[in-house]
Amino acid sequence: MKLQSALEKIVPVSSEKLKQAKACMDSLTKPVGSLGRLEELGIRYVAIRGDPFQRVGKKCIYLFASDHGVVEENVSAYPQEVTAQMVKNFLSGGAAINVLAKHMNTEVVVVDMGVNHDFKGISGLIHKKIAMGTENMRRGPSMTRSQAEQAIDVGLELADAAKKQKVNIIGTGDMGIGNTSPSSAIISVLGETPPGKTTGRGTGIDDKSWRHKIAVIEDAIRVNRPDSKDPIDVLAKVGGFEIAGIVGLILGASANRIAVVIDGVISIAAAVIAKRLNKHVGDYLFTSHQSSEPGCEIGFRLLGQEPLLDLGMRLGEGTGAVIAMDLLEAGTKIYSEMATFDSSGVSQKNKS
Amino acid sequence: MKLQSALEKIVPVSSEKLKQAKACMDSLTKPVGSLGRLEELGIRYVAIRGDPFQRVGKKCIYLFASDHGVVEENVSAYPQEVTAQMVKNFLSGGAAINVLAKHMNTEVVVVDMGVNHDFKGISGLIHKKIAMGTENMRRGPSMTRSQAEQAIDVGLELADAAKKQKVNIIGTGDMGIGNTSPSSAIISVLGETPPGKTTGRGTGIDDKSWRHKIAVIEDAIRVNRPDSKDPIDVLAKVGGFEIAGIVGLILGASANRIAVVIDGVISIAAAVIAKRLNKHVGDYLFTSHQSSEPGCEIGFRLLGQEPLLDLGMRLGEGTGAVIAMDLLEAGTKIYSEMATFDSSGVSQKNKS
Repeated sequence: MKLQSALEKIVPVSSEKLKQAKACMDSLTKPVGSLGRLEELGIRYVAIRGDPFQRVGKKCIYLFASDHGVVEENVSAYPQEVTAQMVKNFLSGGAAINVLAKHMNTEVVVVDMGVNHDFKGISGLIHKKIAMGTENMRRGPSMTRSQAEQAIDVGLELADAAKKQKVNIIGTGDMGIGNTSPSSAIISVLGETPPGKTTGRGTGIDDKSWRHKIAVIEDAIRVNRPDSKDPIDVLAKVGGFEIAGIVGLILGASANRIAVVIDGVISIAAAVIAKRLNKHVGDYLFTSHQSSEPGCEIGFRLLGQEPLLDLGMRLGEGTGAVIAMDLLEAGTKIYSEMATFDSSGVSQKNKS
Repeated sequence: MKLQSALEKIVPVSSEKLKQAKACMDSLTKPVGSLGRLEELGIRYVAIRGDPFQRVGKKCIYLFASDHGVVEENVSAYPQEVTAQMVKNFLSGGAAINVLAKHMNTEVVVVDMGVNHDFKGISGLIHKKIAMGTENMRRGPSMTRSQAEQAIDVGLELADAAKKQKVNIIGTGDMGIGNTSPSSAIISVLGETPPGKTTGRGTGIDDKSWRHKIAVIEDAIRVNRPDSKDPIDVLAKVGGFEIAGIVGLILGASANRIAVVIDGVISIAAAVIAKRLNKHVGDYLFTSHQSSEPGCEIGFRLLGQEPLLDLGMRLGEGTGAVIAMDLLEAGTKIYSEMATFDSSGVSQKNKS
């Protein structure tokens, strides 16, 4: 599926289906609403899928990795080679996302979107390298518009493949040293908020480096003048390949009526772009966690959703998403596996 | 194990072991602290167990059910027979806790502490009935001191059995129409806070019934004059059999160095009593979720712990605990299954 046809295919989730699902949820043996957000998750999932008793087939995290030219401005606490090293760590199963995904019964698919390393011949990796990292956005655009579209296409294709593989819940993950900088830049531009308020400490930089990082992001926006009315222009000029991949995945999931759970600030930036491209994306999107990155708060406001979890996590890789995906699956099971008041003979609430 | 010997057996978790576990956690391939509270969970678990690579054997929720004489004051939205009906629902697997526990790979053990129903001959239930419900605390003590001790013993025995069955993570659950009233009473007395500030709407009562419920709890405290310096006196006079069972389970888990995850306001009231009996209980205790019951907030303050989750849940049964137990297990796997920087060849943070 290409971008234009995906955008045309994304339709709102039926409010009638949401209402029906809510009525079913309320007939189960528990006080109405007493499972809080788990109920909301189950209801939305059922309405998205359109089939109340369809079990969740597979859950899969798509972990997009890429490098960023802007690291030459010293915006990160870690050296660039860590991106490639972590990709190898993902493939050998030693990273946090591997451990959490295994625990939560979720597959992890690792995609090289533009890591500054030659992975030729390495198996277990989806090879979609667009370039050896983006350009330095402080000096000019991160990528060309055509590269941005190419990266979005990768996400769209993966969503189509997910549909064929009966993946019903998709999660987004990212790896890319330096990638909180483009994410903050995107959220700043689309949220009309200065970088001082969208920029955090990423993997852990000190005060001085943080002020420097803000200045770099301010420069990137000043130099490139991204057009906030054109989300793909913003993505190309101050984004990253992995962010663009996530944009495509979110759009493709929505077009295929697959629930998509986003991770932290990098995924949030991508989701904001996707939602600007088609507002109905919000119907298929589930936010996972509040990270300590300040851009999240603004991103959630732009998405019109509250995070599910606040566990003080700030790792990326999809580690927040995978936990929320498991709660989403739990919500669907509540819906399909619990007894009703009628079937179990449990008395209803007293009339007041 | 009897109460006195359990109280003597509970020792603080070694701060040396906590330090060692933290150092190991910091050697894993992720920025230090970037998994937030998951790291804290893993570190505490390892220090409690004393063996860094011991896998979590079994997770088990103990769901204590009982009835409450105070329901004759119309403090609940549901009729009393629902307690017994829900016990049957638990045994046939149709309740929320069954669905969530199955999803999270956790066993559910249902214990009749004092349900106002004859379950004779019903299998799958742990029969520990002390009476057909407590007395109405608005008129006099809920139970005798000897009944309270008998109920605590049930919890202690179950914790001993859990140890033999290699249950390493215990969760607490409750079922009992009317049981938010004794819980609020306990938290009011031990937290020196008027019932108006510890009392919520339970399974869902309206404004008028809520004001009435507060008046009933105020009367119960005035009539019984529980001694806040004597936690068992408080438990006997304004508590419940299931609350006492949970007190015993928490003490027994702590004495056996088993991690214990508590659920909502009923379990919190029990935990506050347990911690007053031996302050080191806090080292073994994990809070799960913020419920909409106002007593929780005060309970967390008394326990000196913040909840892990805030999903708007207010069902009881252990439904909040079971989710937190799964995150606790995830935290232990992070600890034991992730690669280290050394083993994976991933570069460390730049020197700043």
